[in-house]
Amino acid sequence: MEQIPYKIYLEENEMPAAWYNVRADMQHKPAPLLNPATGAPMTEQELEGVFCSELVQQELNDTDRYLPIPEEIRAFYKMYRPSPLVRAYCLEEKLQTPAKIYYKFEGNNTSGSHKLNSAIAQAYYAKKQGLQGVTTETGAGQWGTALSMACAYFDLDCRVYMVRVSYEQKPFRREVMRTYGAHVTPSPSDTTAIGRKILSEFPGTGGSLGCAISEAVEDAVSHPGYRYVLGSVLNQVLLHQSVIGLETKAALDKYGIVPDIIIGCAGGGSNLGGLIAPFVGEKLRGERDYRFIAVEPASCPSLTRGRFAYDFCDTGRVCPLAKMYTLGSGFMPAPNHAGGLRYHGMSAILSQLYDDGLMEARTAVQTDVFKAAEEFARVEGILPAPESAHAIKVAIDEALLCKQTGEAKTIVFGLTGTGYFDLVAYAKFHDGEMTDYIPTDAELEKSFATLPTIG
Amino acid sequence: MEQIPYKIYLEENEMPAAWYNVRADMQHKPAPLLNPATGAPMTEQELEGVFCSELVQQELNDTDRYLPIPEEIRAFYKMYRPSPLVRAYCLEEKLQTPAKIYYKFEGNNTSGSHKLNSAIAQAYYAKKQGLQGVTTETGAGQWGTALSMACAYFDLDCRVYMVRVSYEQKPFRREVMRTYGAHVTPSPSDTTAIGRKILSEFPGTGGSLGCAISEAVEDAVSHPGYRYVLGSVLNQVLLHQSVIGLETKAALDKYGIVPDIIIGCAGGGSNLGGLIAPFVGEKLRGERDYRFIAVEPASCPSLTRGRFAYDFCDTGRVCPLAKMYTLGSGFMPAPNHAGGLRYHGMSAILSQLYDDGLMEARTAVQTDVFKAAEEFARVEGILPAPESAHAIKVAIDEALLCKQTGEAKTIVFGLTGTGYFDLVAYAKFHDGEMTDYIPTDAELEKSFATLPTIG
Repeated sequence: MEQIPYKIYLEENEMPAAWYNVRADMQHKPAPLLNPATGAPMTEQELEGVFCSELVQQELNDTDRYLPIPEEIRAFYKMYRPSPLVRAYCLEEKLQTPAKIYYKFEGNNTSGSHKLNSAIAQAYYAKKQGLQGVTTETGAGQWGTALSMACAYFDLDCRVYMVRVSYEQKPFRREVMRTYGAHVTPSPSDTTAIGRKILSEFPGTGGSLGCAISEAVEDAVSHPGYRYVLGSVLNQVLLHQSVIGLETKAALDKYGIVPDIIIGCAGGGSNLGGLIAPFVGEKLRGERDYRFIAVEPASCPSLTRGRFAYDFCDTGRVCPLAKMYTLGSGFMPAPNHAGGLRYHGMSAILSQLYDDGLMEARTAVQTDVFKAAEEFARVEGILPAPESAHAIKVAIDEALLCKQTGEAKTIVFGLTGTGYFDLVAYAKFHDGEMTDYIPTDAELEKSFATLPTIG
Repeated sequence: MEQIPYKIYLEENEMPAAWYNVRADMQHKPAPLLNPATGAPMTEQELEGVFCSELVQQELNDTDRYLPIPEEIRAFYKMYRPSPLVRAYCLEEKLQTPAKIYYKFEGNNTSGSHKLNSAIAQAYYAKKQGLQGVTTETGAGQWGTALSMACAYFDLDCRVYMVRVSYEQKPFRREVMRTYGAHVTPSPSDTTAIGRKILSEFPGTGGSLGCAISEAVEDAVSHPGYRYVLGSVLNQVLLHQSVIGLETKAALDKYGIVPDIIIGCAGGGSNLGGLIAPFVGEKLRGERDYRFIAVEPASCPSLTRGRFAYDFCDTGRVCPLAKMYTLGSGFMPAPNHAGGLRYHGMSAILSQLYDDGLMEARTAVQTDVFKAAEEFARVEGILPAPESAHAIKVAIDEALLCKQTGEAKTIVFGLTGTGYFDLVAYAKFHDGEMTDYIPTDAELEKSFATLPTIG
């Protein structure tokens, strides 16, 4: 058998020419978004007030299996893709496991994560529609950075509402966005009505993702030529992120490798949904079986301890309702360092797959996650983002299980990004100042009480 | 003609199996290191007190054209190499130039630069010699990070003396080193005699590279089982870095591309020396002609305004003397943000090539450099290190010259690393707080006065 290289790169002409739309193969489609005011499914017209028209089409399309990737987006993808599928030889040796471990590494671009895959697509459609710019929110800053890069490429105005506490604590992220010409506003701000309202009610607040979303949406709908864009959760985002899974599958196929288990971290679901999409398709069509594992922080366990119900996508309760696994939009996640996973809900697609028993989920506490991150960094040479390290933790667990049973399983996980802007968290871990937090049942009951009665 | 892809990756089996030793092809060999006490060439035995034995052999070897890369080092290289040779299609379009621009990107590893190429080699030979650990100094932290990663891989103790002002201003770099298990000590420290001496003479000093070198050397020679390692300047380092040039040449050859101009930033010379080595070899052997351009900061112009003379490699004046272009070891570079280029001297190999008229050199002021960096980041998607941006600046200049003349020259430059840990500098640039500094002739005369009379 051919020797598997350390890194499998596709040729440019082997890169996917179309995104894969897993909804086309799902028997139980994800439930539609509902208008919170009427309880009726959101219409195209309603959605187009907030989102770009072509993205609305993608959001609603659950029948076309493949959607062509426009040439302009493919050209941009070629600047930083294909991303490598790496055989973790050094980790395998360190663990002394018979398992074969692979990871799809999405961190080799300046945004530092997979977020760029959807950012460039959303910016492209905004440009194509003749818009002047887009607005968004960002917490830790990966999404905001990715969108800034994409907007710089298409010469679009980019307005980012960054949670104030992150804006102050992560000046470097903010600075990268400025390098790409974005306007970054700490949220809550006095530039929007909702921002002023919150500031007057809670003077000196550090802000929240929910508030930043509300400000970004208000900014978009109140300025002609602007639309709001979102970096996760939505069907369109998972569609764009399918490029991760398609490349992974093409790379594996090249060497005749068939994975047994595919693992990804799950916050809103953009990475995991993209990584597993084509494999889920095979499973749905009965062509091949795989195990899929979503890993979420124990502090924010939407799949493992949440309810499958209609809920607001934002804590500000201005966005449409989605049917998803959720802890309730009133859930206040503990200050876990994996900012990208601190979301009360989960993509409707992944929620449906999980509810249908097609995917597993488990949790990890953050000290275990950082331990795995450090072990990985030392042997594989990549300093992972705390989010990505959730997947590493479970991949190591599964590889050690193989060591016990003697099985040589093939494990693939998604390494979504790098941790260069997360070193405050690493410092806390090294200094023994990191704590774990698991919400009590009573706390969850309280946040479930914030679920709307609609739907 | 075949379409050139955005990124040319070599296959693993196309990666170099041997380093190229350019000294073997040089008619005028670089002058030997001298013992500052005796003025005589440093002997093997003298050097082995400070450096690993096999590295001393490499340091002195100016006859063997190729030195095999040990299998263990090649395995490590495969974790993050081959690095891509990128066709800068987007930059070309932005500039509207007929020039064809390529860059060899060395930043896709956690150390963020090319430094890892030599770090892993030096750690390997230390391990092979049965040593317990190595010591070194670091300024901005790229070299210290690279060495930490290399030592973690071979389970070697790693002691890094980090210039105190950087230690305090760049806590994130320090934290990455800690993740890789290195012991990082702010310099000057009270753990060495020279450190205590300096602290008593200059209480509260922020330290300097020269002092950190002295501490690292003292630590190494006073502890059995330890040796000192250095990240640039030395012949051995340029030898290891030839992997950059060999890969570049192999990638170009694959598509029949012949560069006209090869550009690199130059501090101690490790990147530029490695990048151009095999091309210089062709030029020396009369096989093909190329233009080579070294770019240095206007604030630290060792090639363009320095003297070709024997000088101390360190400001502490404890290391051997090297014949090189130098501003004098007493030269205090202005606080330019390209910390990796703030060195008073230049590799003996590059100095000799420059003196023989085989290479050009020019300077750039830092505001121009950051302007080029930002322009590059916006179209090519990579946030460059300030050091690397010196090469970008001159590559853009040359491409714009082609636009004027209509020539479709092929330009290759080295993109040594990423700027994720340099965002304080980017912020200053954005805020208009960055100033340029060019030393006066009188200032240089003053630092030339620190040149030793020996040699």
